[in-house]
Amino acid sequence: MLYELYYWPAIQGRAEFVRLALEDAGADYLDVALVPEEEGGGVPAMARFLEGQSVEHPAFAPPFLMAGRQLIGQTANILLFLGGRLDLAPKDAAGRLWTHQLQLTLADFVVEIHDAHHPLGPTLYYEQQRAAAQRRSKEFRAHRLPKFLDYFERVLHRNAGGGPGMVGPRLTYADLSLAQIIAGLRYAFPRASRAELASRPRLCALHDKVFARPRLKRYVSSERRIAFNNDDVFRHYPELDR
Amino acid sequence: MLYELYYWPAIQGRAEFVRLALEDAGADYLDVALVPEEEGGGVPAMARFLEGQSVEHPAFAPPFLMAGRQLIGQTANILLFLGGRLDLAPKDAAGRLWTHQLQLTLADFVVEIHDAHHPLGPTLYYEQQRAAAQRRSKEFRAHRLPKFLDYFERVLHRNAGGGPGMVGPRLTYADLSLAQIIAGLRYAFPRASRAELASRPRLCALHDKVFARPRLKRYVSSERRIAFNNDDVFRHYPELDR
Repeated sequence: MLYELYYWPAIQGRAEFVRLALEDAGADYLDVALVPEEEGGGVPAMARFLEGQSVEHPAFAPPFLMAGRQLIGQTANILLFLGGRLDLAPKDAAGRLWTHQLQLTLADFVVEIHDAHHPLGPTLYYEQQRAAAQRRSKEFRAHRLPKFLDYFERVLHRNAGGGPGMVGPRLTYADLSLAQIIAGLRYAFPRASRAELASRPRLCALHDKVFARPRLKRYVSSERRIAFNNDDVFRHYPELDR
Repeated sequence: MLYELYYWPAIQGRAEFVRLALEDAGADYLDVALVPEEEGGGVPAMARFLEGQSVEHPAFAPPFLMAGRQLIGQTANILLFLGGRLDLAPKDAAGRLWTHQLQLTLADFVVEIHDAHHPLGPTLYYEQQRAAAQRRSKEFRAHRLPKFLDYFERVLHRNAGGGPGMVGPRLTYADLSLAQIIAGLRYAFPRASRAELASRPRLCALHDKVFARPRLKRYVSSERRIAFNNDDVFRHYPELDR
């Protein structure tokens, strides 16, 4: 099946968690953000689904995925749908639910990483909330960042399935997302993440394992991979990292 | 099956979305927060699952549900699990995914409602972030609140299933959650929500429909229903509502 992924151009954003799963599985997908507007892609193609009057199941926001005639929104929900199809989730219902639970906790983590630079909400620019961002980042680095990292390090440690990831014997989409978050944290908070990751070897090993997968290695070095940048979820503002 | 629900005592919090589903279905459940500590309930019972070294699938935070030997965390994930069992979700996979997508969008809405009084994060008291809360609430009331309400009003309008809720011919757990959010908004932002809901009749009708269901009517007037209060997700601070 050809999947169509809809998202903003020029940022990785939340779509990147979906891209990593699709790329790792070698799935056939069209990244509509990379298709020029004159060829029917880009923002106008996305806007038709968000604003179209006849869309029965509109998403609140991108990313969303078109799979045949099914339109699916919410990053974690897209991965719940794709997990079995891409062989990136356990086969049993309990294993799938646990993988999804981890993905939802990763989504919560991403919200807090984002809000470190946007504490007053998404409707103001960073420059309009810099002082509040410094306060929130300080709390984030001191309390929330270690709490989330501790949690995922613990989950890796307790995986009874003996695999390198969080669930069972093989990597899942949640592991790919966790590796992406570690990469993003290293970009956004190089000082804080260096200090925090030094004492969490399983997280570092997972990151390396994921990005050493042949298909992901090729993807990351391809032009399809958008670089981390300061219009994105993970942003590097030195004043938020000291 | 007897379900055990674990959460903080004295607040509705995110557990309330699960309670409403359990109550509406007349399910057999134990609300561990309401069991005295000396009888094995309360916070220590919850802490054992969060901090116990031998818990294989620990939740990051409450609420979580024990169903037989399965421990399930993340509110939306608990409802995904319960939906079919409680007959509060469609039977087909696509319908379940759409219901879950709506629940995840409701969860995003709840985060923004919470962050209106806690923009600098959960590690500081409201009193330590009052000025930032006023700025965030102003943005929330002006932009985010109407955007979310418009979205759910539109989803109600487009439901091709002909039912009073968002999905298919019958109410789902997502409808119960949406009704709870409307009740919470009326408590937290009485001025803003009066103004915003006046032009969104489907949301008001859904709220009334849900809380007129016999079991929910009994639940809300029982001592099991904790009242809205200012230690909770929905908080009424008049300075954030003008």
